[in-house]
Amino acid sequence: MDIPKENFSEWYNTLIKEAELCDLRYNLKGFVVIMPNAADVISRMYRLYEDALEARGHRKSYFPALISEKNLEAEKDHVEGFAPEVFWVTRAGKNELEEKMILRPTSETAMYPMYSLWINGKCDLPLKVYQSCQVWRYETKATRPLIRGREFYWIEAHNVFDSEEGVLSQVQEDMETTEEMIHQSFGVPFLFFRRPQWDKFAGAVDTYAADTMMPDGKTLQLPSTHNLGTNFAKVFNVKYMDDDGEEKPCWQTCYGPCISRIFAAIVSIHGDSRGMVLPFHLANVQAVVIPILRKEGSETVIRFVQEVTEKLAKNYRVVADFSENTPGFKYNHWELNGAAVRVEIGARDIESGKAVVVRRDTGEKESVPFEELPKKIGEIGKEMNASLREKADEWFATMLKEADTMEELKSALENGEGFVRIPFCTDSLEGEGCAEKLKEECSANVRGSRHDANEKPSGKKCIVCGKEASTYQYAARQY
Amino acid sequence: MDIPKENFSEWYNTLIKEAELCDLRYNLKGFVVIMPNAADVISRMYRLYEDALEARGHRKSYFPALISEKNLEAEKDHVEGFAPEVFWVTRAGKNELEEKMILRPTSETAMYPMYSLWINGKCDLPLKVYQSCQVWRYETKATRPLIRGREFYWIEAHNVFDSEEGVLSQVQEDMETTEEMIHQSFGVPFLFFRRPQWDKFAGAVDTYAADTMMPDGKTLQLPSTHNLGTNFAKVFNVKYMDDDGEEKPCWQTCYGPCISRIFAAIVSIHGDSRGMVLPFHLANVQAVVIPILRKEGSETVIRFVQEVTEKLAKNYRVVADFSENTPGFKYNHWELNGAAVRVEIGARDIESGKAVVVRRDTGEKESVPFEELPKKIGEIGKEMNASLREKADEWFATMLKEADTMEELKSALENGEGFVRIPFCTDSLEGEGCAEKLKEECSANVRGSRHDANEKPSGKKCIVCGKEASTYQYAARQY
Repeated sequence: MDIPKENFSEWYNTLIKEAELCDLRYNLKGFVVIMPNAADVISRMYRLYEDALEARGHRKSYFPALISEKNLEAEKDHVEGFAPEVFWVTRAGKNELEEKMILRPTSETAMYPMYSLWINGKCDLPLKVYQSCQVWRYETKATRPLIRGREFYWIEAHNVFDSEEGVLSQVQEDMETTEEMIHQSFGVPFLFFRRPQWDKFAGAVDTYAADTMMPDGKTLQLPSTHNLGTNFAKVFNVKYMDDDGEEKPCWQTCYGPCISRIFAAIVSIHGDSRGMVLPFHLANVQAVVIPILRKEGSETVIRFVQEVTEKLAKNYRVVADFSENTPGFKYNHWELNGAAVRVEIGARDIESGKAVVVRRDTGEKESVPFEELPKKIGEIGKEMNASLREKADEWFATMLKEADTMEELKSALENGEGFVRIPFCTDSLEGEGCAEKLKEECSANVRGSRHDANEKPSGKKCIVCGKEASTYQYAARQY
Repeated sequence: MDIPKENFSEWYNTLIKEAELCDLRYNLKGFVVIMPNAADVISRMYRLYEDALEARGHRKSYFPALISEKNLEAEKDHVEGFAPEVFWVTRAGKNELEEKMILRPTSETAMYPMYSLWINGKCDLPLKVYQSCQVWRYETKATRPLIRGREFYWIEAHNVFDSEEGVLSQVQEDMETTEEMIHQSFGVPFLFFRRPQWDKFAGAVDTYAADTMMPDGKTLQLPSTHNLGTNFAKVFNVKYMDDDGEEKPCWQTCYGPCISRIFAAIVSIHGDSRGMVLPFHLANVQAVVIPILRKEGSETVIRFVQEVTEKLAKNYRVVADFSENTPGFKYNHWELNGAAVRVEIGARDIESGKAVVVRRDTGEKESVPFEELPKKIGEIGKEMNASLREKADEWFATMLKEADTMEELKSALENGEGFVRIPFCTDSLEGEGCAEKLKEECSANVRGSRHDANEKPSGKKCIVCGKEASTYQYAARQY
């Protein structure tokens, strides 16, 4: 593959196909098959993310994928938000079901009726439970593999507290988890927004979300975390007996990192014209060993490569490519597939006692004595991770722009898009009209105010209505 | 909890509830919630099992949970077997779907049409791909948490070969994987059967299955592996170009360890009257530290217990129980929950420099110097694993019986049930009549011949029809 990332849409679609990440030929609209090259990485991401949640006191659970119609209907805003996009199970075998069921689009209405049975007193709180699962939504917008589809793979953590403080500090913790995983571990930069009131989760008090930026300058929502207040608790009867002997509704949050979509962001942000580049700890192949064979002496090289590969396999995911393709073909193939380090070994290298080692992200080559290979590959892995993150951060910084007028906003968006900070009248419901006008004028959405930074306009006017601005919002075109 | 395992049904139901493994109050029939105390173990089992499959060259994938009606209908025997138990998705949002979809009851019909696109030549074979997922079946028999329900959690590995030999050696490999995981790692004994022809998977040439024995003497099927021959390949067009230039149908197997059910077997076989006993590497709590507090000196003990707990936490999953309950209450609680090792520390222990250490499965107590605790707990873990497996093996051996006549079979079953080896006319389809008569007479099923042992009757008569016996079959009552 050799496509500049500037043609992002073509680049992404080609990568998905050529690197065998997804197969789009599954015969149901909006559904794709996640193939081993992607699935192995996604599985690794799941384990890391689960470990990070468990280190913060979350415990795993498995809730049914099916939810009864009456549960969905219990919370008014929620049903209004989700009913248009749920899949209905109406028949089983030959029987029409008396009670229809939905496939979970998200699990609040499956989990909270159970929480109501599990929580009695303060000693049961906080309750921090998550599940790793698929959810299904009847998406009618254009779908895009791993980014938007009718089925996606996520984690949802649903937490319960005895106070609003509990909720607010959980939002902070979720932001830290997001920073640790998405940014530190996966090298994907983001802004952590509080969404405007008109763009929150159906039934929530407040929605926060980590938004990253794709190479085409459009933003993509990564994990979101919702302050549910006591809204769902009141509906589903999640109560605790307080010290004063009174039953009180609990306070709740939920947090939802969509692992398949985060994978799409990782691939898009770190990849290059030749294909996939992955953080070292996520790569399916951390080192590929390529024998350079001439007519004579090829058996010695093959045996030597096998030995080196076995040694490296003690510490890394490693393969030796003994296929009959040319070295050049193999280089391209493994670059496309995101093998982190390439080790080339020919007869002359064996004589000189050194292998040629090539780093995937920079293409840097160096000669490394065989006995130092295991150590060296680990070092390259660390350097690569730091460097991928730094490069992404630097690029991301160039995508943060400012505008005080609609003209400035338009020109910022035309000029490579990105997040544009704008003074805005208000992020309460009254601001929705201005957001709609803004969208009409420049096809951008108002994504929220930064929760990870303290910034407030002073003496500025709303970019739309000209009233005094009470908030800095970020405008961006979105996926 | 204090229920003898002889009352197995009561014991099992009480354990599920008291140890908070499942909540049966979910408001859809046949569906249960797997609570954290079970989910954490099941998640650990998933990771171990996935690692074992990957070590044998399987790669992960994620296939959609929904399958189009026409895929299900493609394989005749398969649709006949599964149609009565599939859930149908017929509506999405407000739209009646033109093309109905089913929730996967198993994934052959989702995966093989894709395999047909992925496989061209011999170089694409063997293809070994698995997924970890839920499946849904409209079960109409009585359900039992984790053992039989409308939703279960499994792994399914679907492999493709260019010859029948490939298939047969995969059956061997699956048997080895089963031995490594179910028996060696989880300590659960089983017999590996080849099922009689009348009891095979819908669409298969042969079905093999690992059957264990529950404490009540009834058998429970654990992983099964199916030789699909070329049946599905022909239907779904999974072909390869052979060296002779001809397109030939591929040979296939599938293997399905049901993790939630295996968990039920582990709990049932290792547990005792006081509750759950788990292999050390599966236990949620590998060591619980209990402070023994008197009125004076309690602060010192608490501080000391905190320090010990922190040190142990470097190597083990450990909790300190500082709740206000009595030590006796705590002992019962953690025994119920299967904490592997209990460490008791009071003021006198601190003076003497030793803690009291109690092993969950045997109740053995010993005094262990504080500095030796980390090492000692690891040793106990190893001993416990070996001892749980040995104990289970010894008990299992007593459940293997023999009978040459129907009277002997009945009396063996009445006398504690178990697997009864019987001479049987044939395991080909012609034997089905005898199996049905046997079932009528003593409510036992013919489970198959041992694939993990070579045994053939000589000069024996079929226990039912009296014709010459060509096979030893095993009869057992089953879940």
